[in-house]
Amino acid sequence: MANLVLVVAAALIDAQGRILIAQRPVGKRMAGLWEFPGGKVEPGERPDAALIRELKEELDLDVARDDLEPYAFASHAYADFHLLMPLWVIRRWKREPVALEHEALAWVLPGKLKDYAMPPADEVLVKRLMERPQ
Amino acid sequence: MANLVLVVAAALIDAQGRILIAQRPVGKRMAGLWEFPGGKVEPGERPDAALIRELKEELDLDVARDDLEPYAFASHAYADFHLLMPLWVIRRWKREPVALEHEALAWVLPGKLKDYAMPPADEVLVKRLMERPQ
Repeated sequence: MANLVLVVAAALIDAQGRILIAQRPVGKRMAGLWEFPGGKVEPGERPDAALIRELKEELDLDVARDDLEPYAFASHAYADFHLLMPLWVIRRWKREPVALEHEALAWVLPGKLKDYAMPPADEVLVKRLMERPQ
Repeated sequence: MANLVLVVAAALIDAQGRILIAQRPVGKRMAGLWEFPGGKVEPGERPDAALIRELKEELDLDVARDDLEPYAFASHAYADFHLLMPLWVIRRWKREPVALEHEALAWVLPGKLKDYAMPPADEVLVKRLMERPQ
């Protein structure tokens, strides 16, 4: 039985309706692919707290808990683990995102997300964001 | 730090657009409240497999993995634990639901869900289903 890995992720949406994606750096699994910012929930950590921590570590963003809107989730069987990834929409934050852990950042309209190579688990989320970015 | 509890749940939607909810039995936490069928993921279990197992145990339903559509999730801090609850929409199943573990079952149009008392964590899911049952 594969391990269950819980990863929290964010679709930051700006005033123009663009969504922030980030490119995974060389040396990590799936290097070069674009992803929603976020990361693993640590033992004993609340999922929303984990997401706020990751956005600070990865992007230097300050996000308030009340500005996290549960949106959708991915549940995907990779060869060696099962990924469960809830995605929150965030429309308000402090500071500007900086790529502290990624190769690059991009602000992309939902209809253009499919031009970026993303991990297989993200497909269902991209599809949903394209159909109704809420 | 409160424990993280992962519960998988289903919105079974019938041909008339009605959603199945089930009433929690006497003797359990939140007895009498109505909820989406589902339950806890066991250690080492895939979330989708857990949901299929729970629907069989609770309702005697047979559901295929391909008929699970990831829909939305709840992330809610109760006093003594943090609940993370992904909700799948299911439109196809075999057999008819039977209340094997619940007090009662009800098929309810999305706009009528608010007439049923449900756990606090479910509010965000009910709101979403009312706005766009997909």
